Amino acid sequence: MARNHALYPVIMAGGSGTRFWPLSRHLFPKQLLRIGGEHTLIQQTMRRVLGSAPASNVLISTNAAQADLIRVQLADWKDDLTEGFVLEPEGRNTAPAIALAAMEVLTRDPDGLMLVVPADHVVTGQRDFDAAVQLASQLAIEGHLVTFGIRPIRPETGYGYIKPNGKKLLGKQGRLRGYSVQKFVEKPNATKAAQYVKAKHYFWNSGMFVWRAATILEEIRRYQPSVAEAMDRIRDLKSSKAPKQAVDEIYRTIRSVSIDTGVMERSSKAAVVQVTFKWSDVGSWGSLDEVAAKNKAGNVVTGRVIDVESEHSIVYADRRVVATIGLKDMVVVDTPDATLVCPKSRAQDVKKIVDILKQQQAPEHLEHVTVQRPWGSYTVLEEGPGFKVKRVTVNPGGRLSLQMHHQRSEHWVVIAGTARVTRDHDVFDLKVGESTAIPVKTMHRLENPGQETVHIIEVQNGPYLGEDDIVRFKDDYGRIAAC
Amino acid sequence: MARNHALYPVIMAGGSGTRFWPLSRHLFPKQLLRIGGEHTLIQQTMRRVLGSAPASNVLISTNAAQADLIRVQLADWKDDLTEGFVLEPEGRNTAPAIALAAMEVLTRDPDGLMLVVPADHVVTGQRDFDAAVQLASQLAIEGHLVTFGIRPIRPETGYGYIKPNGKKLLGKQGRLRGYSVQKFVEKPNATKAAQYVKAKHYFWNSGMFVWRAATILEEIRRYQPSVAEAMDRIRDLKSSKAPKQAVDEIYRTIRSVSIDTGVMERSSKAAVVQVTFKWSDVGSWGSLDEVAAKNKAGNVVTGRVIDVESEHSIVYADRRVVATIGLKDMVVVDTPDATLVCPKSRAQDVKKIVDILKQQQAPEHLEHVTVQRPWGSYTVLEEGPGFKVKRVTVNPGGRLSLQMHHQRSEHWVVIAGTARVTRDHDVFDLKVGESTAIPVKTMHRLENPGQETVHIIEVQNGPYLGEDDIVRFKDDYGRIAAC
Repeated sequence: MARNHALYPVIMAGGSGTRFWPLSRHLFPKQLLRIGGEHTLIQQTMRRVLGSAPASNVLISTNAAQADLIRVQLADWKDDLTEGFVLEPEGRNTAPAIALAAMEVLTRDPDGLMLVVPADHVVTGQRDFDAAVQLASQLAIEGHLVTFGIRPIRPETGYGYIKPNGKKLLGKQGRLRGYSVQKFVEKPNATKAAQYVKAKHYFWNSGMFVWRAATILEEIRRYQPSVAEAMDRIRDLKSSKAPKQAVDEIYRTIRSVSIDTGVMERSSKAAVVQVTFKWSDVGSWGSLDEVAAKNKAGNVVTGRVIDVESEHSIVYADRRVVATIGLKDMVVVDTPDATLVCPKSRAQDVKKIVDILKQQQAPEHLEHVTVQRPWGSYTVLEEGPGFKVKRVTVNPGGRLSLQMHHQRSEHWVVIAGTARVTRDHDVFDLKVGESTAIPVKTMHRLENPGQETVHIIEVQNGPYLGEDDIVRFKDDYGRIAAC
Repeated sequence: MARNHALYPVIMAGGSGTRFWPLSRHLFPKQLLRIGGEHTLIQQTMRRVLGSAPASNVLISTNAAQADLIRVQLADWKDDLTEGFVLEPEGRNTAPAIALAAMEVLTRDPDGLMLVVPADHVVTGQRDFDAAVQLASQLAIEGHLVTFGIRPIRPETGYGYIKPNGKKLLGKQGRLRGYSVQKFVEKPNATKAAQYVKAKHYFWNSGMFVWRAATILEEIRRYQPSVAEAMDRIRDLKSSKAPKQAVDEIYRTIRSVSIDTGVMERSSKAAVVQVTFKWSDVGSWGSLDEVAAKNKAGNVVTGRVIDVESEHSIVYADRRVVATIGLKDMVVVDTPDATLVCPKSRAQDVKKIVDILKQQQAPEHLEHVTVQRPWGSYTVLEEGPGFKVKRVTVNPGGRLSLQMHHQRSEHWVVIAGTARVTRDHDVFDLKVGESTAIPVKTMHRLENPGQETVHIIEVQNGPYLGEDDIVRFKDDYGRIAAC
């Protein structure tokens, strides 16, 4: 890394979760899944960028709805990330999100470099990745907007392609070469894609970038002036300590535009480093083949699966036993509330299923039956007219908000750990096998003062059992105003 | 029906449940499933035989483990069936079970005819069935052992075949003909089966029979003398009111032998009525095609299924949403604790899955998470170290035994109806939203005195949570000694 140009990794973590449904959900996108390794994709991404920068330099670009879950998954770097979240008030595609992150970098360091990486890709080869970032950083210091080009291994029609200008070598390091970009090509048809693979001088655009924060903001101002103007107003509002709501309103008016089509494809500063690491955007269930470990029969198997003679299939079991016989090139994904079965070749059509669920306003597109919270989690075990049964876990030291419900009573039975209960003005501890009842309109709080995770079974009764029947009096996680 | 020869239908309901796993289980066999109609197979069978005999003549041949569930499903005929259950102490194949039922018929009526039918087949055409029984009864009165021959519609290798002796017409009625049997053929290979279908004078052996109880016992004595001798001893023991255990011991020593190979294939009295009704033994998931309603794409779909362009597939959803894309000739069956995915052509191999589960002593081969009881049902919602959560339903007027557990405490929260609770010497009612705790070693009882089904959530805590940690003091269903 060049001196005086610190690198700020920006992890783009605002994606939605349609392609890996039912394992991903709208509120539990792909980046939170454990794919191709023991860690989740965003955890892998965090570890990857730490090869080039300290954790305190990392920015997470996401939205409020996902920030809590990301904080839980990145808890190992909790202290370093306290100021690291750059929240989009609403999804406006990558250009505004990157502009927002660039402004944050500039306030920290006028010479700062940004390493922009999606939170949900898989990269194999940490050293090769580090080397690519290093060469890209050199080019970025010289004023280039650097992309990472991946050598195509199949005629993929789902990616954009980059053609380097072979005559304009900008820099090299070991086997790595950096060139000016001759042209960007939008997602091609199958014939063109096949030509590109054969031609050997087209590269996949991996959606990862290195540039100076100042450079990208200049280019955004040149090619997307309205985005730049909105950023100016946001910066002014922030420096005058205007309410968050005012900032959000401006952000919402910004045109939705991607950094690729909005800036990169127009800028003369675009460069590409032809990288040597293995990369996959794991864009669908079918692409798991690229990154997951297979057994002898070519199957990717997770969980309690009993198979008889299946081949080249992906079978995911969660809490149930999944039995498969004689499958070939199939995908079977079983979760507590939804099951998917399709041939690998149709895996992209999972999007159609999610669309149908969305139209039906079915909960299965939105979130899992187990929902992570800053204090722990809850799992809906059963619900029906007038009742809901949950298993609630509270992490050591965690506590729910001091709250009250207008329409439901609750019964709690402790099944693990020791729970501290506040009920009206009483505070008392419940051990395993002990229980308490919380009547309607009674102020209450659940807390784990111990070292062991508390598990309780909660039975709710009442005419309305929505999560929004909650009045919060005190909260450790800043959720008094919002939900 | 000829006068003086009353007909006693004998429903053979001792089958196990491997072929329709995961919908059937060892303790919840196929006969209890709703297939090819709004009623379960055993309910359909009961209705079918009532065309030929009053309910009070019906005998159910089964075992103690299944009798409770059958009683629940046949509750409409509860009073008529009080004496109607003939329980095998242990499965010894059909010959001993039929001998036991024949003895029961003889004690009621020395001239009685038996109509023996499996509990888990589908028959379409009640009138044709009634007519077949009528002709078969005439032949049976004349001393024949009458089988029902089904015209083959495919070269099935899973059934035995019957060749009638076309020269020995024994009787006719409308389009129906009854002949002597020339020969029985055991399950043939594919070539032979194809020949039989082409030859047009071979019939499937449907496993249904009509004969005089006296005739079949005579023929059992002739060809299976050891079975007959065991029956003699059982009859003597019963008439001397010996303990049930003594009878059971003798039954267990009987050789396992089927009525087909043990008697029918050897007897000169075998006859066959060539029937006109539609019949299926629904022997596997694939055979659902014969009896279930299909949608335009040829799919048999049950429950909350979201499909994109599947064809000729069977998709069964229970409590979850099941999403399918582009399936062809597949079977997908989703139950609360187990999911099956296989091509229709491999559906027989479900047996292999069940065998593996059995080897693993996995609960999923044995019973469902919802277990029917004479007083209602329970569903295990969740279990883990030291706890179990159940939803318990109690039918109006039903009550569990007065009981006690050595190792677990229980908490009950009422979510529907009004429950009457006995706890030690207290008796009190709990309404919706109310709860109580039952400490370890405390005598207790749950009861539904009202008209509406009671639902409670039960949370169990303790080091051992098996169903066998129960001491019963009083029970409405005769379960003090046994479990």
